[in-house]
Amino acid sequence: MKISELSRTTGVPVASIKYFRRQGLLPAGKATAATLAEYGQEHVQRLRLIKALTTLGGLSIAAAREVLTAVDQAHSTESALGAVSYALPVPVAESPVGDADREAETGSAAEAEVEALIAAMDWQMPGTSPHVQGLTAALRELKRLDADYRPGELVAYAELARSAARLDLDRAATFDDDPVSLAEQAVIVFALSAPVLELLRRLAQEDQVRRRIAGGKPEPDTE
Amino acid sequence: MKISELSRTTGVPVASIKYFRRQGLLPAGKATAATLAEYGQEHVQRLRLIKALTTLGGLSIAAAREVLTAVDQAHSTESALGAVSYALPVPVAESPVGDADREAETGSAAEAEVEALIAAMDWQMPGTSPHVQGLTAALRELKRLDADYRPGELVAYAELARSAARLDLDRAATFDDDPVSLAEQAVIVFALSAPVLELLRRLAQEDQVRRRIAGGKPEPDTE
Repeated sequence: MKISELSRTTGVPVASIKYFRRQGLLPAGKATAATLAEYGQEHVQRLRLIKALTTLGGLSIAAAREVLTAVDQAHSTESALGAVSYALPVPVAESPVGDADREAETGSAAEAEVEALIAAMDWQMPGTSPHVQGLTAALRELKRLDADYRPGELVAYAELARSAARLDLDRAATFDDDPVSLAEQAVIVFALSAPVLELLRRLAQEDQVRRRIAGGKPEPDTE
Repeated sequence: MKISELSRTTGVPVASIKYFRRQGLLPAGKATAATLAEYGQEHVQRLRLIKALTTLGGLSIAAAREVLTAVDQAHSTESALGAVSYALPVPVAESPVGDADREAETGSAAEAEVEALIAAMDWQMPGTSPHVQGLTAALRELKRLDADYRPGELVAYAELARSAARLDLDRAATFDDDPVSLAEQAVIVFALSAPVLELLRRLAQEDQVRRRIAGGKPEPDTE
């Protein structure tokens, strides 16, 4: 199809398609003349993915490019999952500021907390993992607000996170066997399911708040 | 304390403090002379909260202001929780584009899916809830990518979300009784715990991927 039809099919304006091409997010079409190119179904799918990443996923163009590069370099199922998991941006807290002594204290306390959690969960990962560093920074930010997790609370959340990750991996693994299309599905499951879980949690919070207003107590725990 | 000391204590530059004042995020200090104001512990706490919201929480200045306005208007424990829950920004997907027939189809399918989920979970909330609308938009975006949840999958995630929300509410409820400080804690629990749960999930995903690479299978489910 021509670029105009690609635009019509996906709802992405021609100017945006050209922009994504220049930014290296979308592969070139097959040149049919000096100024004409032919696009296929893989361009439709890739454009939908770019749109979803940059809207629902909240990724910048640069972050989306990094994720899509990892997708295109995927050569096996598992390396695809690993590469995508590392390429996704990590929520970050600001670097330390203010009172230096207090900062050093909250910093090492947060590190110890993350280390203990990873041991308690029997999670296997290097200390250089961006997720380890991200969690350490987040806990540190909460310590600055005197809003630490109480003992056991973080493990309780981590157990829920483990259950969610198992659902995620099962979801990703049922898709295609071709590494690139598996990696595309991994992006969908990893990057685009984060807002869905967050929205479900917000709905559940809203329900809990309403129940507590109505009855003063939440519904009995039936699990 | 003077503005210079407030800056030193919190690590927030004087220019940023003045900006937050002008933007209505930080209440005025007590005027002690025409150009001097005295700041107290409540300003320290509020500045830390603003910083955490706009960095870890990823909120814009406008969104942070809306949340903090809800905090300051809180007059009871439960209304504080409700107001904060509604004031927080919702992850959003782009509005419909492309093929009109397909759009109408994915739109009503997503609405039906959310309705069925809310009924299955026995959640109490109006259809006008921003979270209902946000989830509908997110599912629609996934449908555009042909990445629907399979039957039962969404409920499985929703059960996890409900457990997380219970932990959240218990966390928020153990804090102070004063509505404004409770609302501040609710902001911390609701807005700043979202990245923590997401990071825990990313850690768990990383662990799962590594286990599957190593053994071809995840560890046995021990729950």
